Amino acid sequence: MLRITRAAEFCSSLRYWDPALSAAANQRRFGRCASQHGHNYRLEVTLRGVPDPATGMVMDLKDLKEILEREVVARFDHRDLNGDTPYFAKQVPTPENLAQVIRDLLIQALPAGMLDRVRLYQDEDLWVDVLEEAL
Amino acid sequence: MLRITRAAEFCSSLRYWDPALSAAANQRRFGRCASQHGHNYRLEVTLRGVPDPATGMVMDLKDLKEILEREVVARFDHRDLNGDTPYFAKQVPTPENLAQVIRDLLIQALPAGMLDRVRLYQDEDLWVDVLEEAL
Amino acid sequence: MLRITRAAEFCSSLRYWDPALSAAANQRRFGRCASQHGHNYRLEVTLRGVPDPATGMVMDLKDLKEILEREVVARFDHRDLNGDTPYFAKQVPTPENLAQVIRDLLIQALPAGMLDRVRLYQDEDLWVDVLEEAL
Amino acid sequence: MLRITRAAEFCSSLRYWDPALSAAANQRRFGRCASQHGHNYRLEVTLRGVPDPATGMVMDLKDLKEILEREVVARFDHRDLNGDTPYFAKQVPTPENLAQVIRDLLIQALPAGMLDRVRLYQDEDLWVDVLEEAL
Amino acid sequence: MLRITRAAEFCSSLRYWDPALSAAANQRRFGRCASQHGHNYRLEVTLRGVPDPATGMVMDLKDLKEILEREVVARFDHRDLNGDTPYFAKQVPTPENLAQVIRDLLIQALPAGMLDRVRLYQDEDLWVDVLEEAL
Amino acid sequence: MLRITRAAEFCSSLRYWDPALSAAANQRRFGRCASQHGHNYRLEVTLRGVPDPATGMVMDLKDLKEILEREVVARFDHRDLNGDTPYFAKQVPTPENLAQVIRDLLIQALPAGMLDRVRLYQDEDLWVDVLEEAL
Repeated sequence: MLRITRAAEFCSSLRYWDPALSAAANQRRFGRCASQHGHNYRLEVTLRGVPDPATGMVMDLKDLKEILEREVVARFDHRDLNGDTPYFAKQVPTPENLAQVIRDLLIQALPAGMLDRVRLYQDEDLWVDVLEEAL
Repeated sequence: MLRITRAAEFCSSLRYWDPALSAAANQRRFGRCASQHGHNYRLEVTLRGVPDPATGMVMDLKDLKEILEREVVARFDHRDLNGDTPYFAKQVPTPENLAQVIRDLLIQALPAGMLDRVRLYQDEDLWVDVLEEAL
Repeated sequence: MLRITRAAEFCSSLRYWDPALSAAANQRRFGRCASQHGHNYRLEVTLRGVPDPATGMVMDLKDLKEILEREVVARFDHRDLNGDTPYFAKQVPTPENLAQVIRDLLIQALPAGMLDRVRLYQDEDLWVDVLEEAL
Repeated sequence: MLRITRAAEFCSSLRYWDPALSAAANQRRFGRCASQHGHNYRLEVTLRGVPDPATGMVMDLKDLKEILEREVVARFDHRDLNGDTPYFAKQVPTPENLAQVIRDLLIQALPAGMLDRVRLYQDEDLWVDVLEEAL
Repeated sequence: MLRITRAAEFCSSLRYWDPALSAAANQRRFGRCASQHGHNYRLEVTLRGVPDPATGMVMDLKDLKEILEREVVARFDHRDLNGDTPYFAKQVPTPENLAQVIRDLLIQALPAGMLDRVRLYQDEDLWVDVLEEAL
Repeated sequence: MLRITRAAEFCSSLRYWDPALSAAANQRRFGRCASQHGHNYRLEVTLRGVPDPATGMVMDLKDLKEILEREVVARFDHRDLNGDTPYFAKQVPTPENLAQVIRDLLIQALPAGMLDRVRLYQDEDLWVDVLEEAL
């Protein structure tokens, strides 16, 4: 049993914004993150499994790349997280929430029990780890 | 005579969009960059000069840091380049154009003849260099 | 339940030196690390928790940044670990020991049960991980 | 109890190739990886232990460096994994298999119970983790 | 007038080998580089020009990406430089020579006068710069 | 004619300190840099030349590595710049001054006309470039 990790990147815009609050209340709660801004996100997806003796692979990485492309990059890259995706109508696009959205998308797309961890970098100095199972 | 470089970072949202064109024409011209998205920009500002023998410095870096903060970070960080700044009403916020805007702001803020080069990274694989003087 | 990590940096000088030993014995035991030298340390602090549904955050990162500034950067940045801090009078400032000192400072400053891991890089090729609880 | 990690690098050539298959079948199974190519591998070796109070060290890093040099770099650096090493006669040199070969070499060379994890990067966007014990 | 740079990567195997010399003479001249090995090469291609006022671009980066893909990645990625390409029959695939081969390929593929510099990294600590014109 | 660059690293301690000034005056002039601290310096040395047709090399990199080791690493690594080297008795060890000291050492050790540039990083966000000839 081992783990293999593959990274992908996407560029999105966003603001921390609770539609139930006034503009002033959003500003008070979220400070400058309530203004429209953007990030180069980096996603690292870790799978666990036993390599197939014939191929030496836990999963063919071309297949994993296609899944990341379809489930993550196509949904979030060059998109506005608040306006262009359905995931942040009732929650704020913090890295905590975005990482959980991605984890949920990947659990459904990957073979059962294979997803080990989703790590999402907002920038080099801030990131979130979500496990397949809550800790 | 030598060169010294200091880096700063800012996170902005943007879209490539020419207001004189229709939405369809913008989409045709700029592809997915016509959609709202965002970047962690990295700016590297290079100064040239002779170190002061008393301090060993071309410029006190606390002063340079303040200039970068005031002229660049305060204007562009956690802002939408198209909607929240006056610089892209008539031009598209490509890294080429954004780097030139920053160069013009810094030339006015720095002692004459001191700015050597502005380098602006959109991401690790794409960047623009603008010199104080056109090449 | 998830994990969120934030990085900070500090620049310190140090030498591996046991005051109970002679200079020659320190030299024999620690080699070139017994000479005065320095590092750009990088600290990565990982918290665990459940995001607050109203804010989408495990902890407001402005608060975490202030804690790291006060507890770590203000104590160690632009300081000599042996001479300017009280932590290495009886132990050598190896990355193992420095990471444990930082872990102890952060456990007291953070809400109970929130610190998951302290990672301290001496340079890109060497680092130490200390968990809230011993492994 | 804590963990300490040290990195090393080596440059090898390889191809994904099962000698029991025809050239066409290798090509079908492994795609472009069936062609001779190469990588700058990066290895991160994590040890766990309690620092010795006299030295503040889990293990003297000069000793660890020598072990990595002898067990890994001397075997794989500037070598062809398929032709110049005995490890891939019956298995394909995927990062999964190479990481396990290195784990087995290091377990024998290190004090018992000290190896925590072997991480092997094929490039910045793809890596494998193998623990001392299967997960 | 400004400069814009885009990076690409490719993984190749190679050995420093002069076919006119004996194996022993190659070994003497090139040391461990005479053994088959490999690298993750990183290429940075710099163009110079004036941005088109309508698009804000020196060159559409989708076009540049296609040229790099066709002229460089398709020729060298997952290839053996000595055996699978025609460029090193009479010269050794040092980074100096490989960078010049790539420069010559790109000058022919790009609009005249646009190529400013080719930078080729063999690894993070070693790289070569070739200008459009010899210095 | 092309350029080739090789990097090396060293870890030193230092303080910005003018012996002709009082402690209070040093503190006023240099702020927190007047306190003893340290850095992981990264040096990038660029040579220019025409590759030898027989070897494909501007200079044998084993020779360059030995020169960097002898002239730079052996002098500055695990040393205190102020106390353990003769170069900062009358000048402050700013990166500007340290880069010039290294340039002067390398010009004498390298074949005439071969040194193109010395780049010295104090950290990832601050560095100095010194050319063989003043700009």
